[in-house]
Amino acid sequence: MTVLRSGLSSACILGALAILASGAAAQTPARADSAPPAPPMPRRQPTPNDSLVSPEVSSDGRVTLRIYAPKASEVVARGDVAPSFSQPLPLTRDARGVWTGVSAPLPPGAYQYTFVVDGVATIDPKNLSTSFSQSSLNSLVEVSPTGDDFQAERNVPHGAVAVVRYHSPSLGARRMHVYTPPDYNSGKAYPVLYLIHGGGEADQSWSAVGRAGFILDNLIAAGKAKPMIVVMPAGGVGQKSAPMTSDPSKDPFTSDLLDVIIPYVERNYKVSRSPDSRALAGLSMGGIQTLNIGLTNLDKFRWLGVFSSGWFPADLQAFDTR
Amino acid sequence: MTVLRSGLSSACILGALAILASGAAAQTPARADSAPPAPPMPRRQPTPNDSLVSPEVSSDGRVTLRIYAPKASEVVARGDVAPSFSQPLPLTRDARGVWTGVSAPLPPGAYQYTFVVDGVATIDPKNLSTSFSQSSLNSLVEVSPTGDDFQAERNVPHGAVAVVRYHSPSLGARRMHVYTPPDYNSGKAYPVLYLIHGGGEADQSWSAVGRAGFILDNLIAAGKAKPMIVVMPAGGVGQKSAPMTSDPSKDPFTSDLLDVIIPYVERNYKVSRSPDSRALAGLSMGGIQTLNIGLTNLDKFRWLGVFSSGWFPADLQAFDTR
Repeated sequence: MTVLRSGLSSACILGALAILASGAAAQTPARADSAPPAPPMPRRQPTPNDSLVSPEVSSDGRVTLRIYAPKASEVVARGDVAPSFSQPLPLTRDARGVWTGVSAPLPPGAYQYTFVVDGVATIDPKNLSTSFSQSSLNSLVEVSPTGDDFQAERNVPHGAVAVVRYHSPSLGARRMHVYTPPDYNSGKAYPVLYLIHGGGEADQSWSAVGRAGFILDNLIAAGKAKPMIVVMPAGGVGQKSAPMTSDPSKDPFTSDLLDVIIPYVERNYKVSRSPDSRALAGLSMGGIQTLNIGLTNLDKFRWLGVFSSGWFPADLQAFDTR
Repeated sequence: MTVLRSGLSSACILGALAILASGAAAQTPARADSAPPAPPMPRRQPTPNDSLVSPEVSSDGRVTLRIYAPKASEVVARGDVAPSFSQPLPLTRDARGVWTGVSAPLPPGAYQYTFVVDGVATIDPKNLSTSFSQSSLNSLVEVSPTGDDFQAERNVPHGAVAVVRYHSPSLGARRMHVYTPPDYNSGKAYPVLYLIHGGGEADQSWSAVGRAGFILDNLIAAGKAKPMIVVMPAGGVGQKSAPMTSDPSKDPFTSDLLDVIIPYVERNYKVSRSPDSRALAGLSMGGIQTLNIGLTNLDKFRWLGVFSSGWFPADLQAFDTR
């Protein structure tokens, strides 16, 4: 076995040592020549932050957000929990310095938000759930995706959502997310859905915010979807990105998908290589990329899904059946 | 093909529409009956935050942190970039309201930190890279893990690091991370390393902070490690956790590993079931769990790795060879 050099922080080790030193070690006699006692932890005053809970979701779908910011003069929340894109959710301060805001009742789903504390955007320090886009990190709160909800984490056979690194000759180090279904080890060859995120999102958005893995698990368990592999690439290619054109050759993602990603997937996963088993879909900007790439490569993709693209390439007129 | 309902935010779609409306759509004639023009974006004043870069790593390993907080009266950074656990890194304010702090030169590695702005802990709003532990979210900065560094993202064959959900009869919905090697599709049966994180960390710590996937990729490419599957479970089991005892039956993770995780892995992955092909290792708290579980199950694990556990179970005296 090869020993991995630990990349974890010394603070972690120190914390574990402190836990040991503070009590548990006393339960069992330690060897005299084992680790020296850890230094005492620095003392600090307790604050209302210590027991603060945020976010909190009520049974009617209202999200309560809280942040401890005793010196701040204004705190608002922006994002999906706010009344609108231009109207943030205001938070009000109590005597202890805790700011609180409550959203309108929200339907089940995943909602992104950030606090703006005296003009500084920040995630919710009490919320470990986040989602990042190409340009910002957001806090993530889920409104009751439980029980029968189609996106809930149910006790059904689960697939796996993997981070996959690959090298593109023209773009360098790249990343995608790949969902494999529960019975992937069965040896079958699976169909593949290539699923592209929207503008400002990233390769993990479909799984982290869109809960794609849970939705697929539930659909497959219910017999509503065939087991498939879902490849979620990074549709944005930094400064080189130009998907908003009807010429797919101007978008570097076109070649990344056709010449690098698909060959990679078909080399490294048990997939069917038939065009009938290859689907392409995307949301918004990803929908535009689906139209641009899909309609010009109908020999490769027999299924296209376009969600909210709000745009039709000029060439689409050739497909107009009116 | 089953159509996925989008769980992505309306703000994302609105953003994409706004981009379309603002310019790119003008490059190509749109159909007269396509989407209506998007509403104008709300106007805002530019601030120094718009072009702020943080973190920035110099060639000598110094990390420069910046945050725009014009109304704040004190900003420090805590974590691995600070001089010590008890001594935070101070940031100083310039006339524009930008706070800046520079660390000492740091050796290559991954470093976690958080800002504390007027007493409020927050991640770095400009840094999309984060790592969360069981109780907090931290910003993550990497000091030159490039080129020949053993943990760099090199152009070598990459494996995949997957999030895997499973159901435990006693613990409910659980999660682990699983590394599969580059040639996993070859049909071979692989040895498995079960690798446990330290106290306060979580199942993604070895891959997110410890860069386990990159390290394995590099070791396998160099012929220094046999291709293997690395299972990184969640060693902490919430309030039920009691690893700091010499009686492994008191730690719910023991049964989770032996009765749920290992059978799950051996059912769902192409692995060798021989004890010679099963290794158990852990850092700090995970090292204690490795001692507790490994030494009492030598028929299951023929390889144990204990890093910085700082603790020896009483029964280990039976193994003392002095």
